[in-house]
Amino acid sequence: MLKKKEKYVVAVVGATGAVGNEMIKTLEQRKFPVETLRLFASERSEGKKLEYKDTEITVEKLNEKSFEGIDIALFSAGAERSKIWAPVAAKSGCVVVDNSSQWRMDPEIPLVVPEVNPHDLKWHKGIIANPNCSTIQMVVVLKPIHDAVKIKRVVVTTFQAVSGTGQKAIDELLQQTTDLLNFRDVKCNVYPHQIAFNVLPHIDKFLENGYTKEEMKMVNETKKIMGDDSIKVTATTVRVPVFRGHSESLNIETEKKISPNEVRALLSTAPGIIVYDAPEKNIYPLPLYAAGKDETYVGRIREDNTIENGINMWIVSDNLRKGAALNAVQIAEKLIEMAE
Amino acid sequence: MLKKKEKYVVAVVGATGAVGNEMIKTLEQRKFPVETLRLFASERSEGKKLEYKDTEITVEKLNEKSFEGIDIALFSAGAERSKIWAPVAAKSGCVVVDNSSQWRMDPEIPLVVPEVNPHDLKWHKGIIANPNCSTIQMVVVLKPIHDAVKIKRVVVTTFQAVSGTGQKAIDELLQQTTDLLNFRDVKCNVYPHQIAFNVLPHIDKFLENGYTKEEMKMVNETKKIMGDDSIKVTATTVRVPVFRGHSESLNIETEKKISPNEVRALLSTAPGIIVYDAPEKNIYPLPLYAAGKDETYVGRIREDNTIENGINMWIVSDNLRKGAALNAVQIAEKLIEMAE
Repeated sequence: MLKKKEKYVVAVVGATGAVGNEMIKTLEQRKFPVETLRLFASERSEGKKLEYKDTEITVEKLNEKSFEGIDIALFSAGAERSKIWAPVAAKSGCVVVDNSSQWRMDPEIPLVVPEVNPHDLKWHKGIIANPNCSTIQMVVVLKPIHDAVKIKRVVVTTFQAVSGTGQKAIDELLQQTTDLLNFRDVKCNVYPHQIAFNVLPHIDKFLENGYTKEEMKMVNETKKIMGDDSIKVTATTVRVPVFRGHSESLNIETEKKISPNEVRALLSTAPGIIVYDAPEKNIYPLPLYAAGKDETYVGRIREDNTIENGINMWIVSDNLRKGAALNAVQIAEKLIEMAE
Repeated sequence: MLKKKEKYVVAVVGATGAVGNEMIKTLEQRKFPVETLRLFASERSEGKKLEYKDTEITVEKLNEKSFEGIDIALFSAGAERSKIWAPVAAKSGCVVVDNSSQWRMDPEIPLVVPEVNPHDLKWHKGIIANPNCSTIQMVVVLKPIHDAVKIKRVVVTTFQAVSGTGQKAIDELLQQTTDLLNFRDVKCNVYPHQIAFNVLPHIDKFLENGYTKEEMKMVNETKKIMGDDSIKVTATTVRVPVFRGHSESLNIETEKKISPNEVRALLSTAPGIIVYDAPEKNIYPLPLYAAGKDETYVGRIREDNTIENGINMWIVSDNLRKGAALNAVQIAEKLIEMAE
């Protein structure tokens, strides 16, 4: 458990990646009580310097003693590295907030979205899992609706930005687009097919049941975060040529009736949400505008009258912020709030 | 009714647009029995020359006598022009296949997808409506499933290419992308927001019920084409920065159980469909590859076990071909087959 202090020694593991970078920025922007910031990455990036506030911090390589003296470590270095290093960090007395998929479904490890299940932070044993980006923005919106009218089933289709894959995917979309506009051949290194001017119904690996891992994350993580196994989710996750901001088309079936106006009223007072819903004025959530913002934007709220109690909506959030870095930092902030 | 002939005098109205252009190409590619091809467009394009086979054809302006001697007219000139000119053409004894939304829901006018309801061509009175692009590819796939196990409900989210809006939208996506890569400001003329590296949950106008016209077309046209008002459809239609090829994420609830393998077997022998479904080899439908093809590609077929009888799938087709020009030409071919 975290001890109450004025300021904390914080580490970012995977500091040179797209999410790691955003974590550093988020700590600074939110004036996180940082005593010292330490940055870790793979051997390749050792010695590289990254900016935090007005200083330059040198990226270090991890070793068995790296976590000594560190209070909070934000990990975004992939499942393989988390599997090895998060327990090492936790053993050193550091609290780990891990952005990889490694620990998310471990029953011994809480999976937390601060707006939804902050209470689950109470039983952590040194590691807390940060959910999948596409799940986080969805549960932020589902939670108030579930509390009000109980959600039975969600059919979700996502439109996910390339930054969810990491910096190399951002580079690939840019490079492919530039090559196409210059009549050069396109190279595909990160994705199995061209992503520029295309959409790929393929995120993460395919499983035996025909779903991708990403789709099953949305199904399983939702139940764990919401603390309710009865919520049924079926997902189709799709990569789109957008740099930043995941969009989701949600079809929600509830137990009790709720009107679109009631949904708007409910969500407009809920934490972390901005209702952005005036289609007659061309106002609806867009990844382009949600990029760099903290909130999840909700719009296109309308009744689905093909079922008794149905609502359609369109939600957008910045996958690197609320979908990753911001949620991790918010977890750390909650831990500080709860520290004694 | 069309009279049996060796060859026909054919007109394309709206010949200079994206669909009109594709109609000319399709007539040529499919070796349509053309005696003479006449091309019409708005005043602005009068005198312009377009290629058909190895000849150049001069674009004419429409007048009251334009349709004299024409057997078949393929219209793709917008609802307003169809409203005025399709009845004029029909009165001249010409059979009109109209690609606009003008006549689609008129109970006196058949709305036809040749793979689904060719029988409806029997009762036409001079005008036949070509359905909306996003509806056509969906019903081609729904039809065999409906015949086998009856479809109760469909939740669909679309990923629609800019060419569905027309040539000026193709130009806008290209221009915005080029401007962004050159650090120039982006101009939005066709869409209310930037489409490059963005997605817009907005196709056609918004209606009072919060849905767009495009979404309601998918709901209403599906019932009419399938000849079954009991099929419930709820839709979210989204524009994506893709030049050509509409993709759709379908969640289908059927009355009787059908397994993914049975769906694959069923669809692989159905007309106009290619089952393209081997995700472990990264084989699934993509707009990039469907562009320029005639068929609707179906993949990512998997069971949705959140309901008793549920199937998810991902379908892609070329919106300018099967979604517009090809379907219109196929209707004309059927009319010839039925001519006496």
